[in-house]
Amino acid sequence: MNRYKIKIEYDGTPFVGWQYQKKGLSVQKILQDAIFLFSQEKTIVNGAGRTDSGVHAYEQVAHFDLKKNFEKKKFVSGVNKYIGNKPISILEIQKVNKNFHSRYSAKLRIYRYVIINRSSRLALQKNKAWHIKNKLNLLLMKKASKILIGTNDFTSFRSASCGAKSAVRTIKNALIKKDGNKIFLDFSSKSFLQQQVRSMVGCLKFVGEGKWTPEKLKEVMLIKKRSYCAPPAPSHGLYLLKVKY
Amino acid sequence: MNRYKIKIEYDGTPFVGWQYQKKGLSVQKILQDAIFLFSQEKTIVNGAGRTDSGVHAYEQVAHFDLKKNFEKKKFVSGVNKYIGNKPISILEIQKVNKNFHSRYSAKLRIYRYVIINRSSRLALQKNKAWHIKNKLNLLLMKKASKILIGTNDFTSFRSASCGAKSAVRTIKNALIKKDGNKIFLDFSSKSFLQQQVRSMVGCLKFVGEGKWTPEKLKEVMLIKKRSYCAPPAPSHGLYLLKVKY
Repeated sequence: MNRYKIKIEYDGTPFVGWQYQKKGLSVQKILQDAIFLFSQEKTIVNGAGRTDSGVHAYEQVAHFDLKKNFEKKKFVSGVNKYIGNKPISILEIQKVNKNFHSRYSAKLRIYRYVIINRSSRLALQKNKAWHIKNKLNLLLMKKASKILIGTNDFTSFRSASCGAKSAVRTIKNALIKKDGNKIFLDFSSKSFLQQQVRSMVGCLKFVGEGKWTPEKLKEVMLIKKRSYCAPPAPSHGLYLLKVKY
Repeated sequence: MNRYKIKIEYDGTPFVGWQYQKKGLSVQKILQDAIFLFSQEKTIVNGAGRTDSGVHAYEQVAHFDLKKNFEKKKFVSGVNKYIGNKPISILEIQKVNKNFHSRYSAKLRIYRYVIINRSSRLALQKNKAWHIKNKLNLLLMKKASKILIGTNDFTSFRSASCGAKSAVRTIKNALIKKDGNKIFLDFSSKSFLQQQVRSMVGCLKFVGEGKWTPEKLKEVMLIKKRSYCAPPAPSHGLYLLKVKY
């Protein structure tokens, strides 16, 4: 058996998310089908991040096992061909050690959330960013984002359906940058809880709109109750940016 | 009669282009219909640039006349609502003098062409950039682009169906920038010939690939024959960036 690691870019708009589901198109299923058509081998493609429906990836990482040995270039162009016109692209492949696991070996995941802060609705960035009309106060958002850095119990910021045993996570970095009317919010952590980034962004938006103070966000974190969280930001503004090993 | 000037953003992917055509969805027709639904007045929306099918706009400019007087904010949000889920957004509106004409009053048009230079196919930028696999030599492309600046006869770089009387145009600037594997080619001119930008980009790509020298591009320009032009770059990498008055 050969273990392969791939990097994948996708536009999450038409998909039910990364994970295979009985109904609808998942990125995982499309990859597995295309790899089968190329290699004639059935395999499970394990992703590093189980992105929700509508969430995009600049660089998702996955691993899978195949009996056969493939030349890298042929694999990438061949499997991409079988993916057809769906907006998924295998960027690169490499052979890895049997011990490598896309999910469990990951040391750092970086997610990016994109907001477009302008009055008129989106056209070119439709389904690619969160459109917020109210002028956001970036200074306050930056101040509030610092509160999220470090090791904390993120119960308030995870989906009710999140299955993780512990809600304690360590946010290594939270960076907010501006480029014209675009706002980028980058979060780094070894791992995230379900809907954690979108929940944090929803709360930071409240701070930016002046609905909450940064101190209020801290209170919400410390109270450890989901019901105190702001509505999570929509999935179509979220990107899995990088996974480091 | 009130003359209005609007700025419009659109994703050209689903449209037959700016201009009304009997078959297919045009940006012009969608705007005219939405303005009618909002104002109950029939009007012709005149665009500054008649972008082809698949060409995008960050800031197209258009003008039209209406008997009624509208409050700016209400007009923008009302008409955008009637545009529905099509990827078109009116960014702003202002009342202008009767003498203003989106097309004839324009002093400068800036078009941007976007190339993504990488081996694997596009996913997030599908239909939004030209995917070129071969590593392009940017220095040679920059050198060649300088040849296009100034007043020249661009017969070699215009579509066979271009109806302009003269093929002489003045390129004010041609700027090539790189950001990671993205290459931006910005061209400024009072006006452009049909398919001129795409034709120039097609030739610059030949230079970048080493198929042509910059001197060859100059020869092609001076020979004034369409048949000598490289295949025009595809429409989906082209953006109308700005129109100045």
